[in-house]
Amino acid sequence: MATIHLDLGARSYPIYIDSGLFERTDLFAKHIRGQRVCIVTNTVVAPLYLDKIKKKLTQFSLDEVILPDGEAEKSLANFERIMSHLLSNEHGRDTTLIALGGGVIGDITGFAAACYQRGIDFIQVPTTVLSQVDSSVGGKTAVNHPLGKNMIGAFYQPKAVIIDINSLSTLPVREFNAGMAEVIKYGILGDKSFFTWLENNIAAIKSNDKQTLSLMIEKCCQCKADIVASDETEAGVRALLNLGHTFGHAIEAEQGYGNWLHGEAVATGMVLAAKLAVAMNLLEVSELCRIESLINAFDLPLIAPDSMSLDDFVRHIRRDKKNIGGKLRFIIPTGIGQSEIRDDVTIEMLQQIL
Amino acid sequence: MATIHLDLGARSYPIYIDSGLFERTDLFAKHIRGQRVCIVTNTVVAPLYLDKIKKKLTQFSLDEVILPDGEAEKSLANFERIMSHLLSNEHGRDTTLIALGGGVIGDITGFAAACYQRGIDFIQVPTTVLSQVDSSVGGKTAVNHPLGKNMIGAFYQPKAVIIDINSLSTLPVREFNAGMAEVIKYGILGDKSFFTWLENNIAAIKSNDKQTLSLMIEKCCQCKADIVASDETEAGVRALLNLGHTFGHAIEAEQGYGNWLHGEAVATGMVLAAKLAVAMNLLEVSELCRIESLINAFDLPLIAPDSMSLDDFVRHIRRDKKNIGGKLRFIIPTGIGQSEIRDDVTIEMLQQIL
Repeated sequence: MATIHLDLGARSYPIYIDSGLFERTDLFAKHIRGQRVCIVTNTVVAPLYLDKIKKKLTQFSLDEVILPDGEAEKSLANFERIMSHLLSNEHGRDTTLIALGGGVIGDITGFAAACYQRGIDFIQVPTTVLSQVDSSVGGKTAVNHPLGKNMIGAFYQPKAVIIDINSLSTLPVREFNAGMAEVIKYGILGDKSFFTWLENNIAAIKSNDKQTLSLMIEKCCQCKADIVASDETEAGVRALLNLGHTFGHAIEAEQGYGNWLHGEAVATGMVLAAKLAVAMNLLEVSELCRIESLINAFDLPLIAPDSMSLDDFVRHIRRDKKNIGGKLRFIIPTGIGQSEIRDDVTIEMLQQIL
Repeated sequence: MATIHLDLGARSYPIYIDSGLFERTDLFAKHIRGQRVCIVTNTVVAPLYLDKIKKKLTQFSLDEVILPDGEAEKSLANFERIMSHLLSNEHGRDTTLIALGGGVIGDITGFAAACYQRGIDFIQVPTTVLSQVDSSVGGKTAVNHPLGKNMIGAFYQPKAVIIDINSLSTLPVREFNAGMAEVIKYGILGDKSFFTWLENNIAAIKSNDKQTLSLMIEKCCQCKADIVASDETEAGVRALLNLGHTFGHAIEAEQGYGNWLHGEAVATGMVLAAKLAVAMNLLEVSELCRIESLINAFDLPLIAPDSMSLDDFVRHIRRDKKNIGGKLRFIIPTGIGQSEIRDDVTIEMLQQIL
């Protein structure tokens, strides 16, 4: 088992990665303070893993909230539903929430934990590539608002992240590939050798080779943990993790949450960011090609929806959380393995690439 | 002008107390980082002070959200309304919210600031006794849930608290008196000499003598600041500030928020806590009488609503945030000027006093 330590002082926590961790009662129990646990999951994950985990946690008083599946469910309405469940069942401040599922479940459960009685413990148990490499680590929790993704949320850290690689075997291919967008992101934004490793391991990854997947996820979690430890609330370097997300969020919002998967939108967003970098003379065309090629290897979209105009993008990008003082800010790859935050992107440049 | 410093490391902030502070552009400007400000207030306070403050902040781009008045408005629905306003008007992470009003406005605005884009700056500008001496200081933010008061919230500190004593002159007498319950609370729970000072200054307080009110509010804020600085997230001593609130919250919830004012419910709650203390042989009957007498001097209720049964109380108290491991916990005055957290209160004792 690999254990990565995310160092945040009093809010530090471990990230456990291995096959078969859902069997490990000890790992869960170590991070549950009280007697009561509420598992939040969804209708797709529940039939696969809920009973399995419940059977391992019989020493606790345990109940669950099962939400419908999908990005559209990451809503204030479902947040309220979790609150109502916890209150109706008289959960106290010493209850621990377990987020069992993908990014949607992790984000909404984390936000519920942050707000229930002003904060209770929670454990992230991510079951998708995307949530294992990205959303479960680092304490970004949120729900969506019709006017913008992740606009209502909190920085709130879990007590532990428990990643069972086996859960990836039940993941639909489309979702697996969407998660790969966030994996590739780490290579582009800060680790050239990891990018090359990915190029060399496409087949092993696609064939679900457990050792390769373990290594890959460990690498991503380590990268994320390092960045978060140095900038928990995104005052600086953490913004780099938003590579591809400025365009991606615009695509997701415009297409309606869930029609494009988050990772698919991020994949296209990274290509657009790379094209912007080429237009700004910050990136070689050959590097753009390598990026497009790796993204394409996982059957991810390279171009924005036909229906989206420049105005559609700009309208959403204006609301991006990274903007400061009305200036648009973009994460721009300045090479494979390096990136920068820039606020000198003009509407004309956007027009050129869109 | 009195300035109290609330010491919370990187989250420290000043509390300014004086007459005429709404005129002080410099005090506001000092704590506003960006160019944009959104004032959240209600339909009662807006006609009195909104334009006055806007005229002093013309150097900022400023808009406002005006909520209906009353405890029933401290809801997730109004929280969402603030979010929608901020998003529709493209407010960014560098916007500062100003909470202009009483406890309801302070709590919901603070929670909105805590959650909007995972946290933006806010300034507390409390206009009632209750909010000036209690809710604006210490970073407890929340909205109510139909199943319990303040059940959805966050610990999130403002950048400053600006208290203009003049605002108390427009406060209805019933609300003024309700706020006095929280003032008296500080005397009972930890400061006998302040309790005596209150007994000796009833007339001056009731006649709105500004010097007396300034001193009184300064004293309360200092007490609160000291307690919060030593226990920001209520792991220990901060729970003492809930004296009277366990019963009080039950009364408020059972009667429907707003029918009893929060301070009125807390007043009765403190009397019930004192009676419990007498029943447990922890408080002299003569001290109970002094407590009842001071509360009565501000025309606050001494007894619970006739309609509430023991069961009604117990049902709400079971959901109290202070409870740990299913055990009920009460703040019990063990003398005037001292109090304890106890978890040895039995249903029989409750029956005896209710």
